[in-house]
Amino acid sequence: MWIGDDAAIVAAPATLLLAADLVVAGVHADLALTGVDDLGWKAIAVNVSDLAAMGGRPLHALVTVAGPPGTDLDALYRGIADASRFYRCPVVGGDLANAGVLAVSVAVTGTTDGRPPILRSGARPGDRLFVTAALGAAAAGLRELRSGAVPPDGAPNARAHARPLALVAEGAAAREGGATAMIDVSDGLAADIGHLAEQSGVGVALDRARVPVAPGATFEEAWSGGEDYQLVFAAPDEASVDAAFTAAGLAVPASIGVCTQDRDERSLDGSPWPGGSQGWEHDW
Amino acid sequence: MWIGDDAAIVAAPATLLLAADLVVAGVHADLALTGVDDLGWKAIAVNVSDLAAMGGRPLHALVTVAGPPGTDLDALYRGIADASRFYRCPVVGGDLANAGVLAVSVAVTGTTDGRPPILRSGARPGDRLFVTAALGAAAAGLRELRSGAVPPDGAPNARAHARPLALVAEGAAAREGGATAMIDVSDGLAADIGHLAEQSGVGVALDRARVPVAPGATFEEAWSGGEDYQLVFAAPDEASVDAAFTAAGLAVPASIGVCTQDRDERSLDGSPWPGGSQGWEHDW
Repeated sequence: MWIGDDAAIVAAPATLLLAADLVVAGVHADLALTGVDDLGWKAIAVNVSDLAAMGGRPLHALVTVAGPPGTDLDALYRGIADASRFYRCPVVGGDLANAGVLAVSVAVTGTTDGRPPILRSGARPGDRLFVTAALGAAAAGLRELRSGAVPPDGAPNARAHARPLALVAEGAAAREGGATAMIDVSDGLAADIGHLAEQSGVGVALDRARVPVAPGATFEEAWSGGEDYQLVFAAPDEASVDAAFTAAGLAVPASIGVCTQDRDERSLDGSPWPGGSQGWEHDW
Repeated sequence: MWIGDDAAIVAAPATLLLAADLVVAGVHADLALTGVDDLGWKAIAVNVSDLAAMGGRPLHALVTVAGPPGTDLDALYRGIADASRFYRCPVVGGDLANAGVLAVSVAVTGTTDGRPPILRSGARPGDRLFVTAALGAAAAGLRELRSGAVPPDGAPNARAHARPLALVAEGAAAREGGATAMIDVSDGLAADIGHLAEQSGVGVALDRARVPVAPGATFEEAWSGGEDYQLVFAAPDEASVDAAFTAAGLAVPASIGVCTQDRDERSLDGSPWPGGSQGWEHDW
C-alpha cells in the first residue's frame, strides 16, 4: 500500500458500486503516440465511466502499477492525479511492483446517491435508444496520431483518444430521464449495443442517419471504433430524457433507434447489422 | 468487467476498508516452482491479509489479470476461486487484458463489523509486541523449492510459500485483545516492525530468543524473510491478548519485545538491529 496503513478506512453508502479495469501499455495505449501521463488518466477515466454507465459517480480509487524500472512514475501519477481530481475520486491506496510491461489496474467505488443503479438488462421492447454524443472521435484520433498529421498540442480527436472523458453527469441525467438500461461505449457502438440488447433480451433497430459521427471521423469509426466512452441507453420516453438532460445543462442525447420484441433483430436501416457485433476487443 | 454490468452493486457497511495489492509472475512467485493456481490464491490472500492487519475481514474482491496468451486461466481462476471461497470474499468484478507478463491485481473491500480498525500508528511506549505464530516458513519453503528437495505433494514450508494464509481470525482476536497497532509480515519481521514503530513514533526492543522460528527455517529467514503474513501487533496487556486468542480458539501469540520511548531505538537483545530494517522489498 502507498498510504500509511494496510488498508484505507472510508465512509461508504449502504449500496456501493464496485468496478475494476486495467490499461496496459502497448494494448490500450501506444506510448509512442500518447504520454505515460495519458495512460494514468485513462486508467482512472475508464473506471469512472463504468460507474457513469450505472448512473453513478465515483467515491474512491485504488491503483496498482506493474511496470519496468525506468517508467516515468512521476508522469504516470500526474495523469492519475489529474483524473482523480477531475472526477473527485481520491486515490486511497494501491501497490507498485516491478514487471516487464506497464499495466495500471484501477478499482473504484461509487454511489448512485440512493437512486437505483441502471443495469444493462432493463431495456424493454419499444424503448428508444439514445447515445449521449458523437462517436468515433477516439478511433479517428488514433488514426490521426498514427499518421503523424496531428499538431503537437493535440487536436480534439487525438485528445479524445489520449484522455477520454467519463460522462458522470450524463449518466445521472439518463437515470433521471428514465433510462431502463445503459452501457458505456468502450468496445464500439455495435458491440456495446449488442451487449445491452442481449442482456435485456430485446432486439434493436437503428437508424444510420441518426448515429452521430464526430467531426473528422468516419461512420465505421463511429460504428465500431470503441473507446469513446459515450453512454448508450434505452428509455421509454424521449421527452423525459430531453428534459432531464436540459435540466442538467447538458446537450440532449441523440435518439438513434428502438428496442424491438424480436430479440434476434439487429438491424441498421432495416438491413442486417454491418460488420458483426464484436467491435474492438482488446481482451483475449 | 467479467460480470454482466459495468459495475457490481453490493451492500456496504458505513465504515469500509479498502486495499489493493498486486502479484507479478517472476517477482512474487516463480512459476517454475509454484503453480499458476497458487499465484491466483496468493493474489487474494495477500489482500485479505491487509484487511486482517486492520482487525477486519473481507467482503468483496475485484480482480484484474494482465497476462500473455497461453496463460492457464483455468488454473489461475481456480486458485482465485479457492481463496475467494476460503475467505468468504466473492469476486464481484474485474478485467482481463493481454500483456507480456502475468500480473494479477486484486482490490478488496472489508469491514471491522463496527469495531475501530487497528492502524499502524497507535503503539505506545510500554506496549508489548506480539507475533501471531512462527516466522520464516515462506522463506524456508522457497529455499526448499529452489533446492528441488521438496516432495511433489508439498511440505509445510513449501506450502506456506505457495499458498500463504491470511490470518483473519487472529487479526480480530488481536483487536479484541486491545491491539494498539498492527501490521502483517509481508516484507519481513525486521522491516515490518520498523514500519509499525516509525508510524507509531516509538522505538522497539526485541528479545531474540522469543522470536518464534518455523521448523526448518533459520533465524535469518524468520527475521527478514517476509511473506509469512503473520501479524505483528502492539498491545498494553499480555493477559488480555492471551484471553482474546484463547476465547477465539487460537494459539496465544508470542510476546517478543516491547515498544520504547526512544523512537530511534531498534534493538535485538540490546544490540543494534541486525541487517538493517529493509527486509525483502519486491517493489522499486
